[in-house]
Amino acid sequence: MNTVDRAPVYINADRLWKDLQDLSAIGRDRCDDSSSHSRGPGYCGVSRVAFTLSDMEGRKWLLNRFREVGLQVYMDCVGNVIGRLNPQGPGDEGGDRGSPVPGTIVMGSHTDTVPSGGMFDGALGVLGALECLRTILESGISLRHPVEVVSFANEEGGIFGSRVHFLGVSNDEWASALPVLRRVGLGQNPLPGEPDVPPPPRQASDCAGYLELHVEQGGILDASGEDIGVVQGIVCIHSFTVRFLGFANHAGTTPMDDRKDALLGAARLVLEIPRAVRQSGSGVSVGTCGQIRVSPGGQNVIPGEAEMSVEVRDLDDTTARRIVSALRERAGLIAAEMGLEIRLSDVSEIPAALADSMVQDAVEDSAREMGLKFRRMPSGASHDCVSAAKVMPSGMVFVPSRHGISHSPREWTDKEQCANGANVLLRTLIRLDTLL
Amino acid sequence: MNTVDRAPVYINADRLWKDLQDLSAIGRDRCDDSSSHSRGPGYCGVSRVAFTLSDMEGRKWLLNRFREVGLQVYMDCVGNVIGRLNPQGPGDEGGDRGSPVPGTIVMGSHTDTVPSGGMFDGALGVLGALECLRTILESGISLRHPVEVVSFANEEGGIFGSRVHFLGVSNDEWASALPVLRRVGLGQNPLPGEPDVPPPPRQASDCAGYLELHVEQGGILDASGEDIGVVQGIVCIHSFTVRFLGFANHAGTTPMDDRKDALLGAARLVLEIPRAVRQSGSGVSVGTCGQIRVSPGGQNVIPGEAEMSVEVRDLDDTTARRIVSALRERAGLIAAEMGLEIRLSDVSEIPAALADSMVQDAVEDSAREMGLKFRRMPSGASHDCVSAAKVMPSGMVFVPSRHGISHSPREWTDKEQCANGANVLLRTLIRLDTLL
Repeated sequence: MNTVDRAPVYINADRLWKDLQDLSAIGRDRCDDSSSHSRGPGYCGVSRVAFTLSDMEGRKWLLNRFREVGLQVYMDCVGNVIGRLNPQGPGDEGGDRGSPVPGTIVMGSHTDTVPSGGMFDGALGVLGALECLRTILESGISLRHPVEVVSFANEEGGIFGSRVHFLGVSNDEWASALPVLRRVGLGQNPLPGEPDVPPPPRQASDCAGYLELHVEQGGILDASGEDIGVVQGIVCIHSFTVRFLGFANHAGTTPMDDRKDALLGAARLVLEIPRAVRQSGSGVSVGTCGQIRVSPGGQNVIPGEAEMSVEVRDLDDTTARRIVSALRERAGLIAAEMGLEIRLSDVSEIPAALADSMVQDAVEDSAREMGLKFRRMPSGASHDCVSAAKVMPSGMVFVPSRHGISHSPREWTDKEQCANGANVLLRTLIRLDTLL
Repeated sequence: MNTVDRAPVYINADRLWKDLQDLSAIGRDRCDDSSSHSRGPGYCGVSRVAFTLSDMEGRKWLLNRFREVGLQVYMDCVGNVIGRLNPQGPGDEGGDRGSPVPGTIVMGSHTDTVPSGGMFDGALGVLGALECLRTILESGISLRHPVEVVSFANEEGGIFGSRVHFLGVSNDEWASALPVLRRVGLGQNPLPGEPDVPPPPRQASDCAGYLELHVEQGGILDASGEDIGVVQGIVCIHSFTVRFLGFANHAGTTPMDDRKDALLGAARLVLEIPRAVRQSGSGVSVGTCGQIRVSPGGQNVIPGEAEMSVEVRDLDDTTARRIVSALRERAGLIAAEMGLEIRLSDVSEIPAALADSMVQDAVEDSAREMGLKFRRMPSGASHDCVSAAKVMPSGMVFVPSRHGISHSPREWTDKEQCANGANVLLRTLIRLDTLL
């Protein structure tokens, strides 16, 4: 029997919604209502691209919200904004939850956005976590673990801040990031006079668990009418490029039978992608060609070269590898059949990051307890959780994205759906505080 | 019985070859032997792009060759270079060919090139015609018609000079060409103080016939081992663009079944092109997609839009129209099947320009008489002949292009093949002088 069963607490949905609105006013685009980016009268996109002035303004706003609540606040040298709540002993309602334990439970996401993005991607995870800590403080629940709310820096530009925080980055990557960081006053060594080296990652002993609330950014929950996604993990991304090489020639003087049209090879491979995903994939596998380019590219010239990207995602690296192998084999066969040469790049593999099963169970129990509809599902997009999952038990809570739209001013999640997510986050946090 | 039967004359193959070499030295690219553009040690491409200094240098060189032979020379205000031979009465060997008649027989082509082009495209037609007139003057053959050799301006950039010369251009096109013309001292009204208006086209009464010798620029003659192409006409070009509109979305979070991937529609249509050409075309129809573009174009974004070009060529406009209709219908079906929207541009139709049947017969008779292997064939590429064919009986003589390569430093036609073409041109001219 745990705290939640004894004393159900709920976050304040109005307060969370107001925080989301207030933060979205920072970096709000100027656009008229007729803009194709506009979601409707009076609403435009939000641009808090990492390391811009509006991103930094958003982070300062967040520091002030953390201070209001009474959290210990900190901004590190890459712009990660941290609010910390230390264990406060037995509370009024929480009862005795045992002695404080040292490992921190981190609840993170990000407040940077893509250009002209929406107001939920990232923001909901940070502000939902803040609302959880407010609720805990107000309701007098005591926790065993220290808990931190973090807005990681530059999630949209390569999940940078959370990698720095949990894993550390190479000297080379640090050197290439420094000029950008310095433009907004970041990147400095906190020790005056010392060189601006990459900061050391968080100590393993201080990593108890990680939770992230996020909008789904896909349309599965919206279509099914479910409230909560219990994230099984973040899918791997295996990608490569294919160049078909034929022979560029005059589109008028070259008979059809004498052609080596590289685009015909690429078109066939494009169509093989959904076939291979269906044949060799799991139910959740996806495969995409998002880029294609022909050369020389004249309307009256037979393409001598066609280059295309292929990426495959699945929760299971082995499955993704099987689809990729099938596609690379098909590419070779197509080229051979059509008398084309082929150049395959190496496969770039970003491995899957699986959510901890105990964390998944805690999310599911919390959703069930609230009477919410839920499903276990992979995350097709990458998140700060990827970095955390490498060093500690981690998991994510998804709420629906209307029509699956994200990275757009039209991104939308209802107030009640946001509140559901934050309540599940709160209950999961309380569960994990006991379990971890 | 005609002149050719009575007194076979031959052009001087060495002299023609030397002219080709000399002209190709003007605008020769600087490149080392390892360049991918190089045809071999010591040889690089030729760049006499229209209205550049090297193009003008080539035209001045040509005027001097015309003068050496004793032709009347003229360069008009767009850079068309003309050498004229007037009827000279009965000659030594030619016998009495009758009284002079007024309409001019024009033998034309061009001396401008594409950037890094070859030494035969255009040049062979002009220098071959010059060699014909040299031969006629040396052998004392008398012709009834005045004959002109013309190097038309800017063939490669839109068949400009021959359109000005035979058809005239609109005030708008003239206005847009004037700044380019003026950079090399062209475009001026020959009457001082008068506005620089487009020049009037050649009078219809002065248009007796048109002949053009050209390299095939395709690989048909080279593959078949034939010497001469008797050109049936220049194919039409019917073209349009297709935009498939789907929905751009995250390549990770969007399940395969929920996608509206515009590229999948475009890829299917690309593959329909050779099918439609085979099913609805004549033996010589061709169809090409030379341009394809997806948007937004990120590796991790499902293409929301895919735009592609389609062009179809045939000697017969009706056949081309049938293929285009089939493809447009297929595009609509593909879009409907895949839940995509579609935008089809209007069809742009450049009609076919058929060669005069009497001219074709004269070319064929000349080739047969010389014991050369020939075939009747369409020209898949456009030529100055397109403009001439609109105002008078016109035709073309093709000689082989090695491996069908053109618009490249690797363009090649053997000395003997060039001489064959010029000899057929000469005999055809003498035939037409009687027939026209």
